[in-house]
Amino acid sequence: MNKWIAVDWGTSSFRAYLVQNNQVIDNIISKDGMKFIKQIDFETIFIKLIEKWLIKGQLIQVLASGMLGARQGWFEAPYEIAPCNLKNIKFISPIVNDQRFTLKIFSGISQISEPDVMRGEETQVAGFFYDNPSFKGSICLPGTHSKWIKVDNSYIEKFKTFMTGELFEVISKYTVLKHSILSEDIDKNEFVKSVDIILKNPENIGSALFQLRADDLINSQGNIIYQSRLSGYLLGLELLGSAEFWENKNIVLIGNKVLVELYSFVLKNKVTSIKECISDEMVLKGLKLFKDKIIN
Amino acid sequence: MNKWIAVDWGTSSFRAYLVQNNQVIDNIISKDGMKFIKQIDFETIFIKLIEKWLIKGQLIQVLASGMLGARQGWFEAPYEIAPCNLKNIKFISPIVNDQRFTLKIFSGISQISEPDVMRGEETQVAGFFYDNPSFKGSICLPGTHSKWIKVDNSYIEKFKTFMTGELFEVISKYTVLKHSILSEDIDKNEFVKSVDIILKNPENIGSALFQLRADDLINSQGNIIYQSRLSGYLLGLELLGSAEFWENKNIVLIGNKVLVELYSFVLKNKVTSIKECISDEMVLKGLKLFKDKIIN
Repeated sequence: MNKWIAVDWGTSSFRAYLVQNNQVIDNIISKDGMKFIKQIDFETIFIKLIEKWLIKGQLIQVLASGMLGARQGWFEAPYEIAPCNLKNIKFISPIVNDQRFTLKIFSGISQISEPDVMRGEETQVAGFFYDNPSFKGSICLPGTHSKWIKVDNSYIEKFKTFMTGELFEVISKYTVLKHSILSEDIDKNEFVKSVDIILKNPENIGSALFQLRADDLINSQGNIIYQSRLSGYLLGLELLGSAEFWENKNIVLIGNKVLVELYSFVLKNKVTSIKECISDEMVLKGLKLFKDKIIN
Repeated sequence: MNKWIAVDWGTSSFRAYLVQNNQVIDNIISKDGMKFIKQIDFETIFIKLIEKWLIKGQLIQVLASGMLGARQGWFEAPYEIAPCNLKNIKFISPIVNDQRFTLKIFSGISQISEPDVMRGEETQVAGFFYDNPSFKGSICLPGTHSKWIKVDNSYIEKFKTFMTGELFEVISKYTVLKHSILSEDIDKNEFVKSVDIILKNPENIGSALFQLRADDLINSQGNIIYQSRLSGYLLGLELLGSAEFWENKNIVLIGNKVLVELYSFVLKNKVTSIKECISDEMVLKGLKLFKDKIIN
């Protein structure tokens, strides 16, 4: 029996893959993110989501990672503490009521000094090591909470989280800047210029935000300009704080296509080399790596 | 006839004072902020608010400033451009339908380079000059949009706006930090320490925010600590960008008591001198100064 199920259950989405002989033969992607689910309902909802893959009398192994292992998730999988080796990460095997599957949830990773945590990103990093076992450098996962992770040969050495995506969302949605950020398009030149303004003169960040609104009131340069500036300022803040992770380093970007391309455009002249990877693929490969190295 | 009405109509509140012989003989304070009012309804709502002061056949003068003069306000009063003299600020005299009062709305102030705007704060600054006509230094108005204003002898030379209060609100309300910011109390030592962390190492701001949440997950130091840190980090950003306004300067703080005391506590060892003033009093004195110098 060489079928198994890989699951990435995050705050805002659910992804599962049915794997046979190392190939994905089916997948289920839904918006049933954890944040909408009560702790007591996880098993019922999980079964409803993947029921078509469950066969009575044929026990199938489910390997999962992500926020479902958080305290407010399905079952808590205690953090592994960095530095740590991804080939040797802890997992829990909670008992489920259904007789058709077993469940293993892999730990997230915490860092004591400086305090930081991740859940799910470590699986994507492991996914990169599946094909690049001896890589040494930094891996960046841009997004709601961007992570910069220093890695060496499947070890996570240290990492840092930036609330870049979440800050963009709340600033563009709930502050006075909402009147000026009505576009989703980016002017790449304005974007890179804005990143560099903050990188060169970090003291500007405090006033740059309101200036964006004032500039719109006085000069009305159009929403794309202001959208590009806000994005650039916030990425500038992130790059400022993560310089030790990318300056003169080989870096890997893992994320959705749009974000990875944007980060790549800004970083291409600042780093030694860049590889670009897509999140979904890395999650699946990460769970494969965990299965090969840890479970089997 | 020496009665007149002073009005400060802002985004989230309405304040009016009935003045006779330079003394306030009555006042009206309400939550009828502009943001709840459609442009066409301003006059009706205004009359409803101050009706008890209006007497048929006795025309009374209303002098107003604040966001009611914005484009989305009652009538637009075009910006005065800084640098400018507060004793010589422009106003508009729009025609109202009611026969019992006349209306004058004073301009806000804009700055072309670097782009910035204010509406209402200039009146509070004028209020300070009412009693301190030859002051030279910087005036800070902490709040949702904190302003730092370089002044000299009733001239506004330049100014800078920081979204400190608004950032605190949206970050503590809508991001993952909301789980750690449940207190309204401040630990002053933690607060000052957090201000200095950002002032000394601005590159920390990007990761300091998420670290606050991670520290709570790992070390659970209690909500007062995290509330104090977030407040401190954001004030640190403001002070970083406003250093030219306060370093080795005489400064004046105008705001509500709590905020003025907090800013004063942080700034006392960093500036030459500090005066503390209360917003409400400064608005009224500012309109008195405008009346004395500009209208009469």
